[in-house]
Amino acid sequence: MRDTHDNMTMLTDFYELTMINGYFESGVPESIAYFDLFFREIPDKGGFAIVAGLEQVVDYLQNLKFTENDIDFLRAKKIFKEDFLEYLKDFKFTCDMWAIPEGTPVFPGEPLITVKGPIVQAQFVETMLLLLINHQSLIATKANRIVRAAGGRGVMEFGTRRAHGASAAIYGARAAYIGGCVGTACTITDRDHGIESLGTMAHSWVQMFPSEYEAFRTYAEIYPDNCTLLVDTYDVLKSGIPNAIRVFREMQPKKMGIRIDSGDVTYLSKSARTMLNAAGIDDCSIVVSNSLDEYVIRDVISQGAQIDFFGVGERLITSKSDPVFGGVYKLAAIDVDGVCVPKMKISENVGKITIPGFKRVFRLYSKRNNRVVADVIALNHESLPDDEYFEIFDPAFTWKRKRLTDFYAKDLRVQVFDKGRCVYELPDVDSIRTYCKTQIDTLWEESLRFENPPIYYVDLSRELWLLRNRLIAEYSGAFE
Amino acid sequence: MRDTHDNMTMLTDFYELTMINGYFESGVPESIAYFDLFFREIPDKGGFAIVAGLEQVVDYLQNLKFTENDIDFLRAKKIFKEDFLEYLKDFKFTCDMWAIPEGTPVFPGEPLITVKGPIVQAQFVETMLLLLINHQSLIATKANRIVRAAGGRGVMEFGTRRAHGASAAIYGARAAYIGGCVGTACTITDRDHGIESLGTMAHSWVQMFPSEYEAFRTYAEIYPDNCTLLVDTYDVLKSGIPNAIRVFREMQPKKMGIRIDSGDVTYLSKSARTMLNAAGIDDCSIVVSNSLDEYVIRDVISQGAQIDFFGVGERLITSKSDPVFGGVYKLAAIDVDGVCVPKMKISENVGKITIPGFKRVFRLYSKRNNRVVADVIALNHESLPDDEYFEIFDPAFTWKRKRLTDFYAKDLRVQVFDKGRCVYELPDVDSIRTYCKTQIDTLWEESLRFENPPIYYVDLSRELWLLRNRLIAEYSGAFE
Repeated sequence: MRDTHDNMTMLTDFYELTMINGYFESGVPESIAYFDLFFREIPDKGGFAIVAGLEQVVDYLQNLKFTENDIDFLRAKKIFKEDFLEYLKDFKFTCDMWAIPEGTPVFPGEPLITVKGPIVQAQFVETMLLLLINHQSLIATKANRIVRAAGGRGVMEFGTRRAHGASAAIYGARAAYIGGCVGTACTITDRDHGIESLGTMAHSWVQMFPSEYEAFRTYAEIYPDNCTLLVDTYDVLKSGIPNAIRVFREMQPKKMGIRIDSGDVTYLSKSARTMLNAAGIDDCSIVVSNSLDEYVIRDVISQGAQIDFFGVGERLITSKSDPVFGGVYKLAAIDVDGVCVPKMKISENVGKITIPGFKRVFRLYSKRNNRVVADVIALNHESLPDDEYFEIFDPAFTWKRKRLTDFYAKDLRVQVFDKGRCVYELPDVDSIRTYCKTQIDTLWEESLRFENPPIYYVDLSRELWLLRNRLIAEYSGAFE
Repeated sequence: MRDTHDNMTMLTDFYELTMINGYFESGVPESIAYFDLFFREIPDKGGFAIVAGLEQVVDYLQNLKFTENDIDFLRAKKIFKEDFLEYLKDFKFTCDMWAIPEGTPVFPGEPLITVKGPIVQAQFVETMLLLLINHQSLIATKANRIVRAAGGRGVMEFGTRRAHGASAAIYGARAAYIGGCVGTACTITDRDHGIESLGTMAHSWVQMFPSEYEAFRTYAEIYPDNCTLLVDTYDVLKSGIPNAIRVFREMQPKKMGIRIDSGDVTYLSKSARTMLNAAGIDDCSIVVSNSLDEYVIRDVISQGAQIDFFGVGERLITSKSDPVFGGVYKLAAIDVDGVCVPKMKISENVGKITIPGFKRVFRLYSKRNNRVVADVIALNHESLPDDEYFEIFDPAFTWKRKRLTDFYAKDLRVQVFDKGRCVYELPDVDSIRTYCKTQIDTLWEESLRFENPPIYYVDLSRELWLLRNRLIAEYSGAFE
């Protein structure tokens, strides 16, 4: 396709370009700035989100480059001077960057990524960092909800055709796997990310043959090792299942399955199981697809549906119930004469006031059961609380205090770039998926539910809380 | 980025590969099949959808090719034989294809695309055709709703950072433009599709300077021709507007604007306009962003908000209120001994029963006012109704009949491929956008509203209706 790109440098909001040109023109392109990427609300009002997309962020940053073609395009805009365009020719990413690893359960307000470096670079990368992290975190979070609802039954990502474009399909499948799916229909994600692609037949296969029986029989002849037959082209119980049973008996494929893609899947799957069992076929998988999500899956399971695998399409790949992961990228500090000066954005919307300063994030675990206790956002120079006593308090409702004992703390972030050099070994997607699962196992059980999960404690260190209050008072005072 | 691709051949549901291998193994890869791409429901229960994405479909089909790497990958799956893999090396698209041009208002059930050709090819392209048409039709349809709500005020597409991956941003911006947006923040869409990219500053720009005034003043010095200032970093009315007015007076930029990105935008925009007017600045554009959609826009306008441009982000680029365009791709016929034999899919879900046969679509317009009267799906050999009298009837509720007189009919589709050769001159995106606007102007006014729009007449020709009834009876009879 004509619109694929060697690099995504020009996939940026135009204001990044007007701003970095402005910094260049003002003579401050190398001023050091600190930006935080964080989000404010968990999709679907869930108990936690899962961060994903870091591997693609690293790829993007390593390939940042304005081509001659890009510079010609910008020149034609007639608002940039030649010295700036010349400067862009050598533009590359030389910042420091810290991030919470992919697959980690995360909470609102936590800096998922911090970029520190020359303002021109740190500002410029905003759009793509947001795009990549927002997208994959959205899908990983949604996929995990669906996987949790399936209660151990396999969930397959089937949404390619309803994804919002090619990247949504490719990386949506990757994120869905991180969130716990067992595979995807998306072949290219298998080729490029090693996530097993799955799939057998559409209704058109059945229609292409003179009869459903012939369609099934031909398929079983060609695929004797793994034979999953789509049984709802004509009539599931009167035609599809009887023909499948006949072919299974005649052909004895190694693995047998049927897929139901329409109708009352609870009733049909139970009836199908009864018919299969009556025919002596006890090891046939029943796969169900058709507009599934976590709520439908929970419901059909509660009604005793006989389903081994769920194929989940549009409602997963678009996160239909809540298709926006609202990550933002905000200036947190600048260096002035070598000293880090915290910055914050005041807003009419209280929820949009940012957390100032160069920060880090701790996660505290109970020594008793290794479950999470709380997260604490602190200033970067503050050390990991390693003593046995720590008081956390809600930054908005400070009378809500909790004294913690018998815990241990972990630094939630890793350094990914050191002056533009990647110093983080990217884990493969299977490791990320496993890590995700182990980290979810450390959450409170209550965080896993869909309705009214508890609000997890994400508190500020006392020093950071005092800093934030001081800045709010200063800014407010300025306009009284 | 490592995951961009010269071609998207491997972006396919895996079952397309198992099926086409099956056709190859069965010795029928060259059997001629007819597939229709159509959708069943209009997003947001709107009165019509806008089809988009055809240009990318053409690109995709022209670049279909399995690389050596792809074939090695497939070989490693250990389910395909060497003769099939060899066959894939020369695989290319040699089908015929008809389509409704981009930007056309379309309705459920209409074949937006028909592919006729060897089953192996016509089947294989299913996934990408759906992905491309579903995505862009979704966004064009949503964008047009938002543009209609804005009632002549400009709508700018600002959603790149919340798009579902890179392609969602790039082609979402293209589709939004087709739907009537005046521009986009997405720079790469400007470079590659010629859609003007727009944008000025983020809050970080304001924060980077010692004061808001200095930030605005510096911006105005650098961009004297077009100076839009973001006024809500600290306090819109106490700080942002006064500083903007001061800078506008001092610097006299050619075009002046302010942008408000938070708070009560109705109240703030009215207050801002009053302050600007009191300062003698009558030609300042007021731009508003922050979680807008057609409903919010309609509401703030009805309350007298003083807004010239809307910047619409996440709710447009994800079509948040309904993020799925449910296009499907179904076998409609096959050639047997040179005769076209209609095929259809029966289903437990009545809405999923397909319309059989090789078809065409007419749109009937009133001679009196050039407004649409109805669409008619007919068999391909049927001619355009050119007489003065035509009876349409609802295919489900056949007592609903209407006798049409004084109308003229147009063939809604164009031929795009003739045996794999593109015979359609793709219009540029500005022409598509203009065409879209003129076509919407032919719709009933009632189709434009958001709540309970009328259901547009999409009827079947008598011959097609009889065919469909006959096939339903045959299939049903088979299982009694």
